[in-house]
Amino acid sequence: MKACIFGASGYTGAELVKILHKHPKFELVNCYVSEGSADKNKRISDLHAFLDLSCNHILQGVGEADLAEIATQHDAIFLALPHEVSHHWAAKLLNTNTLNTNTKVFDLSGAYRISDLAVFENAYAFPNAYPTLADKAVYGLAEWNYEAISNAQLVAVPGCYPTASLTALKPIVDSAFLADNCIPVINATSGVSGAGRKASMTTSFYEVSLCAYGVLNHRHMPEIEEHARTQVIFTPHLGAFKRGILATTTMFLKEGISETDVANAYTNAYARSNIVRLRNSWPKVDEVANTPYCDVYWKFDPTKRCLVVCTAIDNLLKGAASQAVQCANLAFNLPDDAGLL
Amino acid sequence: MKACIFGASGYTGAELVKILHKHPKFELVNCYVSEGSADKNKRISDLHAFLDLSCNHILQGVGEADLAEIATQHDAIFLALPHEVSHHWAAKLLNTNTLNTNTKVFDLSGAYRISDLAVFENAYAFPNAYPTLADKAVYGLAEWNYEAISNAQLVAVPGCYPTASLTALKPIVDSAFLADNCIPVINATSGVSGAGRKASMTTSFYEVSLCAYGVLNHRHMPEIEEHARTQVIFTPHLGAFKRGILATTTMFLKEGISETDVANAYTNAYARSNIVRLRNSWPKVDEVANTPYCDVYWKFDPTKRCLVVCTAIDNLLKGAASQAVQCANLAFNLPDDAGLL
Amino acid sequence: MKACIFGASGYTGAELVKILHKHPKFELVNCYVSEGSADKNKRISDLHAFLDLSCNHILQGVGEADLAEIATQHDAIFLALPHEVSHHWAAKLLNTNTLNTNTKVFDLSGAYRISDLAVFENAYAFPNAYPTLADKAVYGLAEWNYEAISNAQLVAVPGCYPTASLTALKPIVDSAFLADNCIPVINATSGVSGAGRKASMTTSFYEVSLCAYGVLNHRHMPEIEEHARTQVIFTPHLGAFKRGILATTTMFLKEGISETDVANAYTNAYARSNIVRLRNSWPKVDEVANTPYCDVYWKFDPTKRCLVVCTAIDNLLKGAASQAVQCANLAFNLPDDAGLL
Amino acid sequence: MKACIFGASGYTGAELVKILHKHPKFELVNCYVSEGSADKNKRISDLHAFLDLSCNHILQGVGEADLAEIATQHDAIFLALPHEVSHHWAAKLLNTNTLNTNTKVFDLSGAYRISDLAVFENAYAFPNAYPTLADKAVYGLAEWNYEAISNAQLVAVPGCYPTASLTALKPIVDSAFLADNCIPVINATSGVSGAGRKASMTTSFYEVSLCAYGVLNHRHMPEIEEHARTQVIFTPHLGAFKRGILATTTMFLKEGISETDVANAYTNAYARSNIVRLRNSWPKVDEVANTPYCDVYWKFDPTKRCLVVCTAIDNLLKGAASQAVQCANLAFNLPDDAGLL
Repeated sequence: MKACIFGASGYTGAELVKILHKHPKFELVNCYVSEGSADKNKRISDLHAFLDLSCNHILQGVGEADLAEIATQHDAIFLALPHEVSHHWAAKLLNTNTLNTNTKVFDLSGAYRISDLAVFENAYAFPNAYPTLADKAVYGLAEWNYEAISNAQLVAVPGCYPTASLTALKPIVDSAFLADNCIPVINATSGVSGAGRKASMTTSFYEVSLCAYGVLNHRHMPEIEEHARTQVIFTPHLGAFKRGILATTTMFLKEGISETDVANAYTNAYARSNIVRLRNSWPKVDEVANTPYCDVYWKFDPTKRCLVVCTAIDNLLKGAASQAVQCANLAFNLPDDAGLL
Repeated sequence: MKACIFGASGYTGAELVKILHKHPKFELVNCYVSEGSADKNKRISDLHAFLDLSCNHILQGVGEADLAEIATQHDAIFLALPHEVSHHWAAKLLNTNTLNTNTKVFDLSGAYRISDLAVFENAYAFPNAYPTLADKAVYGLAEWNYEAISNAQLVAVPGCYPTASLTALKPIVDSAFLADNCIPVINATSGVSGAGRKASMTTSFYEVSLCAYGVLNHRHMPEIEEHARTQVIFTPHLGAFKRGILATTTMFLKEGISETDVANAYTNAYARSNIVRLRNSWPKVDEVANTPYCDVYWKFDPTKRCLVVCTAIDNLLKGAASQAVQCANLAFNLPDDAGLL
Repeated sequence: MKACIFGASGYTGAELVKILHKHPKFELVNCYVSEGSADKNKRISDLHAFLDLSCNHILQGVGEADLAEIATQHDAIFLALPHEVSHHWAAKLLNTNTLNTNTKVFDLSGAYRISDLAVFENAYAFPNAYPTLADKAVYGLAEWNYEAISNAQLVAVPGCYPTASLTALKPIVDSAFLADNCIPVINATSGVSGAGRKASMTTSFYEVSLCAYGVLNHRHMPEIEEHARTQVIFTPHLGAFKRGILATTTMFLKEGISETDVANAYTNAYARSNIVRLRNSWPKVDEVANTPYCDVYWKFDPTKRCLVVCTAIDNLLKGAASQAVQCANLAFNLPDDAGLL
Repeated sequence: MKACIFGASGYTGAELVKILHKHPKFELVNCYVSEGSADKNKRISDLHAFLDLSCNHILQGVGEADLAEIATQHDAIFLALPHEVSHHWAAKLLNTNTLNTNTKVFDLSGAYRISDLAVFENAYAFPNAYPTLADKAVYGLAEWNYEAISNAQLVAVPGCYPTASLTALKPIVDSAFLADNCIPVINATSGVSGAGRKASMTTSFYEVSLCAYGVLNHRHMPEIEEHARTQVIFTPHLGAFKRGILATTTMFLKEGISETDVANAYTNAYARSNIVRLRNSWPKVDEVANTPYCDVYWKFDPTKRCLVVCTAIDNLLKGAASQAVQCANLAFNLPDDAGLL
């Protein structure tokens, strides 16, 4: 299967390059950046020295006019682009896709993750111009959507925080274990790569120090709420490390729910996954950095009926690039962990 | 006023040495370590090179037999000792205090912070053998206990996490703003110095990475609950940095409480303090590291009636040494920030 | 004595504010930024939260036209400005200084550190337009230039790397201990604050990782060579930490020079200083971070006749702000460590 | 080919497990720890959570009595043991190796790296009891010893610092480019994993900060000197990061040697290697962390005739585990990068 990456020069793009370059079934054919990018015509391995020297793709500049042809030339197209660009280009790539019905688009932006378009516009500050496409997009939380992803032509790869949060929430919410009126509280801390590859004071080394941001209005909150089917309080923090997210989710459970019920809920959801790992100790960010895993551990206090769950991922991998490849694996009938472990 | 420090070789002890060495009113007369300490007879500035060379105290080994005499020789005695040792030695120092009624003890351990002795024993795994003394001990959360601290002979200096947590909680709980049945959720991350100066795998550089610990059973949880007068869920984390704590507290407020009410509660509580600073942006750990401050910032969502408050302190200073000196200042009728700013 | 700071919004500027705000003899009267600065009219303590709240100076925008009046209003003027601006403004401030002959300028830029103007122009890529002033400027390596600094009207405060390097080199070179043809090799690693307060990919958190730069052409190399009076090979590195410099200097000594000779050279040079500290173990960067110290330790191998010396400073303090204040102390007949310890 | 690892619980051991678990030609059959190890009978992936869950080896306790049998059961035996243990066990494994002449031992300790046994004893503080074996041991600097490694039964895998240092030195020294009397100066900084997996104050998070150590007497200095065939000054430093080494080597070259000569020397030595990468910018530690690469970049000043070379490796990989596998690949007639890229 032929694959290409738009936005290959960023941190997530480079991780996609690394995975697809060695993937047993996908062939990475083209790496694109926008026509105006300062990285155009550079070799990807010069920009990202961790890449294997045999990975010597040149970053090609492309514009909207090139999309129709690109769509016919690839089976799997990965978009690691700004939200608004991605929203348009995904539509162009799929509308023009008449010659090759196998082309599938994996959008790593937030453009198609929220199905309620009013909520979307409020979070992203632009309207979705393609409601029909939005309606067909499948949310790519791999462990929860195997079948729909397998049949999708457009997969909205989840955000990094929602991936960590939903992995903790869904076994409990779907089991109807949440106490009435309980609004789960999620506190998460991300490494700086979550802010992308660009110069800014916010991610300047001297300025970075553990700190909350986006409190009560981060755009990942409505994404979590839609896919968990519950209100949540989500508070993100920036941590002084390069990669990874740790999310700590606090929930109060109904009377009668036992620790065994909780254990069964997580086991039933994830015991067969090679990617979500039920741990026997509290996960550390560095244990999942540079891996495709989502690690999970929890503790339940039956007196307070309180459940605390920690989930840890690499924000660039399970929070972006490796989950996109999990989705592509499913969409092309491969085991979801192909090329990842 | 003559002061001495027990346990001067640890991280908190060294910060106390630094503050008291330059304090305008206290004279640091003696620095003690236990008789068996490997640091006995070393110069404190050899152990802790950040100290001024003029601070050339020798760490003297002492045992229980020395306490009676030491009590007569100092006005202010700071204990930076293990909980169980501190619990005995505070009692010995004060029982024998018949010649000098001005001697006051500032205990930085957890020995006298919890007044319900059953709760204490459950948290610390040894019984308090001095209930009368425990009854007289004053909790040294400086901004909330000026008068009692001024008159105390034994001050239980609060734990680091409780200091950060209570500074966020008390203005809201004392104002009766908490929604019925709301149990505040506190997620806090501490730098590694909180674990003390000793070799252990847990704080070995290669092993440290953001991670929860002590979930639902940390001994600071009952301390917070007693002094906030509410149940809480407190989840501590270890962060890969040297100093500082960031605590994020999530609370749901009663209907009718407005953002202005919240602002007034914090302003009334802290506007006159030079130590608790009401910020206009989310505090970062490194902004308070090496300072005596507790920084506070919050945001309220009136739709969800949810209040998120961040508080940041240096765990070794406002979370230990500088708060102990705040208490000592109050106990000797000085401005609480004397020698600290 | 009235003092003001130009460029007060940067990292070095803020450290100067902190020191001068508490200095027993200088009164910090004004904090300036350039007229076009985005920080104009902000409160300095809002930009740099580590500052005491009582330090509530407003950053005033100034231009060249204001310099004449400013010169008459202050005794000590600190310039923490870009090299080329500093070079002009120092000249304007001193040329116009006819009413107040006590005004002294402490220039923290590189504009007046190199006396050979051809070497200067090669290093800084602009010519010095004020050769007479350049000739009168005194190099502010405090421990080596007490008398000249005391009488100077313009002090060129040394660069951070030169301060660390020269502290190691001068006792040996001045004692004529260097082997014939030995060119000392200095490898130094600086924290990221050395790059200043601005957004750039180079100091973006994700990009920072130990790395050499400026190899064989860093502008601090000729500065070191002039003031050490020897050629050197100086290789700077960027380290993944916020503050501090560690410089490791390797020198081969003449036959006949003993370890005792080396010890005497350092002791004679620094034993009386409270700022340069002769240590008894290898200094760590964090032991001098947030202090005005320069720590020194060495080892000599008599067989290879090789001397390795490590020096450590806080690049923003002894490498900039605190050394500027050392110079100002000397220039106004105070002990050089006044307001620093 | 069947492989086993002694000392599999340490940081280097775990990296060997990771590589061999996925290696296309070696089958990792057994993971051993010493009989007294606290990790005996634990699952390796419980100790090192970064490992794939399918990698579920149990750490088996073994003693000297087991070596004879183990030798008959494996083709490739990797020793990640303390120096003195390794020195004995390598001898036992090979002496008893009469049934299976294909067994080859890859010793990651320093026991067989230095051929001059007096120098060895001075550096390691115990005598080598097996001079005949020491004589047959081959130094496993892969790029320089292809043929000898291919035929070796005992490979002494180089130290981490020597690997980085020799990669810079050998092209120049072997080309006889060094100026007469020039003693190369190597300054290197290693991440904390170099100190191994154990609790100690030296590697306690709060204590770690850039610092020299082992100055002028580190045991890697004679190892470098033997294999570079020149005296050197080697100064190691501990850096506040987890993995990686950056070595900066300063050399003065003979008159007449040009930049082109230098470029040719490095190109001739390494252009065909997939592991040593000649870069076009100064390598960063994080660019090689978690990779088997050794990155090289240099600059030459023809006026001073000074060459500065930076080399960067992951100390646990090219500095230990991946270089051991490079050697094993060569010893079993595979491409040296098999299973590594």
